[in-house]
Amino acid sequence: MANSPDPEELAAAIRTGRRAALSRAITLAESTRADHRALAASVLDRLAPLPQGTIRIGISGVPGAGKSTLIDALGSMLTEQGHKVAVLAVDPSSVRSGGSILGDKTRMHRLASDANAFVRPSPSSGTLGGVAAKTRETMLLCEAAGFDVVIVETMGVGQAEVAVAGMVDLVVLLMIAGGGDELQGIKKGILEIADIVALNKADGEDRPRAERAASELRSALNILSPPSPDWRVPVLTVSGATGAGLDALWETVLRHRAVHQANGAWQARRAGQRIGWLKASLDEALRRRVLSGKQARAALAEAEAAVGTGSRAPTAVAEEILDRLGLPGEPT
Amino acid sequence: MANSPDPEELAAAIRTGRRAALSRAITLAESTRADHRALAASVLDRLAPLPQGTIRIGISGVPGAGKSTLIDALGSMLTEQGHKVAVLAVDPSSVRSGGSILGDKTRMHRLASDANAFVRPSPSSGTLGGVAAKTRETMLLCEAAGFDVVIVETMGVGQAEVAVAGMVDLVVLLMIAGGGDELQGIKKGILEIADIVALNKADGEDRPRAERAASELRSALNILSPPSPDWRVPVLTVSGATGAGLDALWETVLRHRAVHQANGAWQARRAGQRIGWLKASLDEALRRRVLSGKQARAALAEAEAAVGTGSRAPTAVAEEILDRLGLPGEPT
Repeated sequence: MANSPDPEELAAAIRTGRRAALSRAITLAESTRADHRALAASVLDRLAPLPQGTIRIGISGVPGAGKSTLIDALGSMLTEQGHKVAVLAVDPSSVRSGGSILGDKTRMHRLASDANAFVRPSPSSGTLGGVAAKTRETMLLCEAAGFDVVIVETMGVGQAEVAVAGMVDLVVLLMIAGGGDELQGIKKGILEIADIVALNKADGEDRPRAERAASELRSALNILSPPSPDWRVPVLTVSGATGAGLDALWETVLRHRAVHQANGAWQARRAGQRIGWLKASLDEALRRRVLSGKQARAALAEAEAAVGTGSRAPTAVAEEILDRLGLPGEPT
Repeated sequence: MANSPDPEELAAAIRTGRRAALSRAITLAESTRADHRALAASVLDRLAPLPQGTIRIGISGVPGAGKSTLIDALGSMLTEQGHKVAVLAVDPSSVRSGGSILGDKTRMHRLASDANAFVRPSPSSGTLGGVAAKTRETMLLCEAAGFDVVIVETMGVGQAEVAVAGMVDLVVLLMIAGGGDELQGIKKGILEIADIVALNKADGEDRPRAERAASELRSALNILSPPSPDWRVPVLTVSGATGAGLDALWETVLRHRAVHQANGAWQARRAGQRIGWLKASLDEALRRRVLSGKQARAALAEAEAAVGTGSRAPTAVAEEILDRLGLPGEPT
């Protein structure tokens, strides 16, 4: 970046909807440089409070479930209705590889050329928490720029779902029926998070199989506790390819919002998420300021080796490291 | 405590199995005083590495599932076989009330008067993480004192299960069949964690109902991914009241250990838990040293109010707090 942008000017430009300003702020948020990220944080602070009336939807599913096609179809339906739709991603593989297949514009043809849509691949970072934090900041920047629907895509293979649940209003789990009627193995932790389940590829000859799988899944979900007294997780059948069931899916999303705004859970969830992000930011800033230097990293590597084998106890070692780094003990 | 114990002497006394020394160390670990907890950490450090061959079992279940009766029966069976059994508890309600119904000796009659058993109620703390950390230290102290089986009891109602899973080798989920054949609502997150499911109260007239519920639960579990390629979660029927099925339950525990020691997962789980506790201890010590003073707590309260309503952005506020408290920025 040639010159350091003024955060107040950048915030103002974002509010007027200037796409270049939004992209610039996102690049700052995703940067490896601490001064860039501090700028992005300052921009976000000036953009608070954010516009009302936005919806943040997590869409989770294993590779092959058809997420890209569904998001492209759903997003296009929404922009036709007058919404502005941002599509982001949290991809755990971008923790290591620096690349991602999620949020891939080449697989969302319509949205990629839709003036009222914005598609961004998953950011990279050294940790999943870092990826999630950057995606969250991008989400908020998009909302400040006028996007009223933000979709965050993730793959149903691990902790990424938990991370995404911590930044969205609801999670849609996208599944497909396997050969015969069995459902592809569901990671149990993902059912815990899902607010809506959508069985995809319910088109043509596959429709009866999808309906049977939906019925089987409803039985399994009936054994589990509902997320709340006001909401039983519905199982819908959809087809990203033909567009079947997408308006029912969107109506279900709107019904979820109506129910949870009426009982206060929607607002409480967002407030809790903000406080959670404050605590996570404090922990991350503490670690960065105290433990990221050369001396600290050497002490940590030594500590992990000893603790990993069980020859030293963790709590004593932790205090030792902080004493050695000169951090004062707790105030009396 | 009248005088400050010498950690080396206390560690030596614990190793010889002196019950009074063990109790003293546990009281130090559970203390609200930082100097007491530091002593306990020092004792644990001197006791490392711990004896081999121990098994740590989490037992989770909703109130009414019959945990106390089952633990009493199982524990007594094990001491008869020559084991030394410790029974601890992580009770989320002890975060607030300072009391707990778990680990209650009055409900485990036999173990309460068994010379080869040790029953301790859940410790109290300001946070669930604090309760879990104290229970974990108590567990390790018990192992150093010669207890080769440690059972950690928890109630199946929330995050406590995740906390317990982070300190044990395997988790047994105890359930009962409700009226008719339906199972009591299972919190989805708990199925995620369970390595063995045991349906309790499979005695007399209730036996057929329990067997039907077991069958139903096996079907539901078949839809979910197994925890590992080498282990499908078995559903057993037991009766804590009559003792039926307890030897099969113990054999299943031993089989779990054999399978996971053979494929290395057992050792890897423990090593990972130790590293996780090092990181948690570092985070907790950082927070305590930097954020627990009067000035810090005032700044935090102000921050939470602003961030909770959305009028300030979390990341910028976090950096502001640390700057105000005089913590240097990250090393260059």
